[in-house]
Amino acid sequence: MSLLVVGSIAYDGIETPHGKRERTLGGAGTYIALSASYFTKTSVVAIVGDDFAGEDRAVLESKGVDLGGLEQVPGKTFFWSAVYSDDMNERTTVRTDLNVFANFQPKLPPAYATQPYLFLGNIQPDLQRGVQQQMKSVRFVGGDTMNYWIRETRDDLLATIRGWDFLLINDSEARMLSGEHNLRRAAGKILDMGPNTLVIKRGEYGAMLFRRDTFFIVPGYLLEDVFDPTGAGDCFAGGFVGYLAERDFDLRNGHFNVQELHRAVIYGSVMGSFCCEQFGVERFRTLTREEIDQRFEEFRRFTAF
Amino acid sequence: MSLLVVGSIAYDGIETPHGKRERTLGGAGTYIALSASYFTKTSVVAIVGDDFAGEDRAVLESKGVDLGGLEQVPGKTFFWSAVYSDDMNERTTVRTDLNVFANFQPKLPPAYATQPYLFLGNIQPDLQRGVQQQMKSVRFVGGDTMNYWIRETRDDLLATIRGWDFLLINDSEARMLSGEHNLRRAAGKILDMGPNTLVIKRGEYGAMLFRRDTFFIVPGYLLEDVFDPTGAGDCFAGGFVGYLAERDFDLRNGHFNVQELHRAVIYGSVMGSFCCEQFGVERFRTLTREEIDQRFEEFRRFTAF
Repeated sequence: MSLLVVGSIAYDGIETPHGKRERTLGGAGTYIALSASYFTKTSVVAIVGDDFAGEDRAVLESKGVDLGGLEQVPGKTFFWSAVYSDDMNERTTVRTDLNVFANFQPKLPPAYATQPYLFLGNIQPDLQRGVQQQMKSVRFVGGDTMNYWIRETRDDLLATIRGWDFLLINDSEARMLSGEHNLRRAAGKILDMGPNTLVIKRGEYGAMLFRRDTFFIVPGYLLEDVFDPTGAGDCFAGGFVGYLAERDFDLRNGHFNVQELHRAVIYGSVMGSFCCEQFGVERFRTLTREEIDQRFEEFRRFTAF
Repeated sequence: MSLLVVGSIAYDGIETPHGKRERTLGGAGTYIALSASYFTKTSVVAIVGDDFAGEDRAVLESKGVDLGGLEQVPGKTFFWSAVYSDDMNERTTVRTDLNVFANFQPKLPPAYATQPYLFLGNIQPDLQRGVQQQMKSVRFVGGDTMNYWIRETRDDLLATIRGWDFLLINDSEARMLSGEHNLRRAAGKILDMGPNTLVIKRGEYGAMLFRRDTFFIVPGYLLEDVFDPTGAGDCFAGGFVGYLAERDFDLRNGHFNVQELHRAVIYGSVMGSFCCEQFGVERFRTLTREEIDQRFEEFRRFTAF
């Protein structure tokens, strides 16, 4: 079943101990869509400036991503740059130029309103809610957020996630949102806010999925070389929701096996790990579904006992 | 099969956000032996002062730990105290009074020389090697070390671990010993130093086991309340080696299944998690093997996909 992704398409400047890119295709929407495209038909609603290059559009189109909802307007595309520490566990943001993204008002082409799967990338919570309200028959909806919205627009955020099936955030965001340091307690509080499924990303340490009555934990994949962690969390999101869309996983009608949610976390982890192997979105030029399924099986091998 | 543990028996002063103990039974040898005692007959070689209380001896004896190698000499028992940060991810050592432990020269009762399983807790590498040399028919030997020995007595440490089947250390020690930040690369270098099995403890993030051709990763158990992490790594060690001794796991003769090593890592993780549930060794007053096996099965449930 098809998936609609709403999120940023951007240019990134990235410096890691392995090298530097002055300006390369990035943005959460880009990573989520590229990752999800390996599993299901994916459409994107986003905004770019008139500097957005045809070759970057082609990167998305080469994976079959539908760009009918990509608005191009006068001005510059969102630009973000950062430098990673030597161990890559910290990064310092150098620039955040929102440019045309500052006035992003997601507009859904009419055909998109009947998409069954919806992932709302990290944008203002009221815009996320506005998109969801335009959808007519969504089966599975959720998304991401960040510390800024948790702190500055908490009420809006709570009103938004109340209508979600799943929330996918990192550990520090889960702690901030819940006010609990312990992640098991944090998860309990967040599940009280609306979503019946919570996924917490822990970077190199893996990910966790919580539901009212169960939880699942997977360690991170152990790469020998992390070239560039940019986008890994978004690729996780794309793998997670993309796999569920592929399986036509319908939470609302209760026709599901919790094992499928666990497998979706593994596919998310697999996609996040591939993302780190090269700069920016470069790994997606050659990545195949066969490699993805092989790494899924590798996860089985190194976690089975 | 029986296990011999060499390590410190101490008194600890502990302060965590949940409370404070001025002076409570502790020391790596204590935790390792208590933990291993749930799996196999365990003996300890250690040293204490004349202030060592009968009730603390009784804690170990109540679990069937053989104290024939516990030397009691005039003077004070090793004392260590620390304060944990609010999130318990950091601790500050307040006092380290080696006392009688400063002159510890492990003396093995003759009967101990034929023990088949040997765990050498974190003491000077040359003392560890000396104990191993007194053993006549050891089947499975390994142990722990710490940053101090890696930095100050590196050559001695390398000579010691060259003769070990397994090394069990934490992630920062693995990085320091190998000079590699990436744990997969670090593991490769450490396996070149002698041990054919390396276990890396990652605290709340779980543990990893590396061999030349395979690796295994398990996430940490998710406790709702961590009362006191003191001794968790040593309880992990006791569960790991205790389970292998129980299974009569013979690495040298090659009669083993790698799955047993993975299960040993899970039992280690289980024992480490129980240790954190109460102050010091208090959890061991009530802990049963049945609870341990139940938590082992719980690990299966929350990691299966």
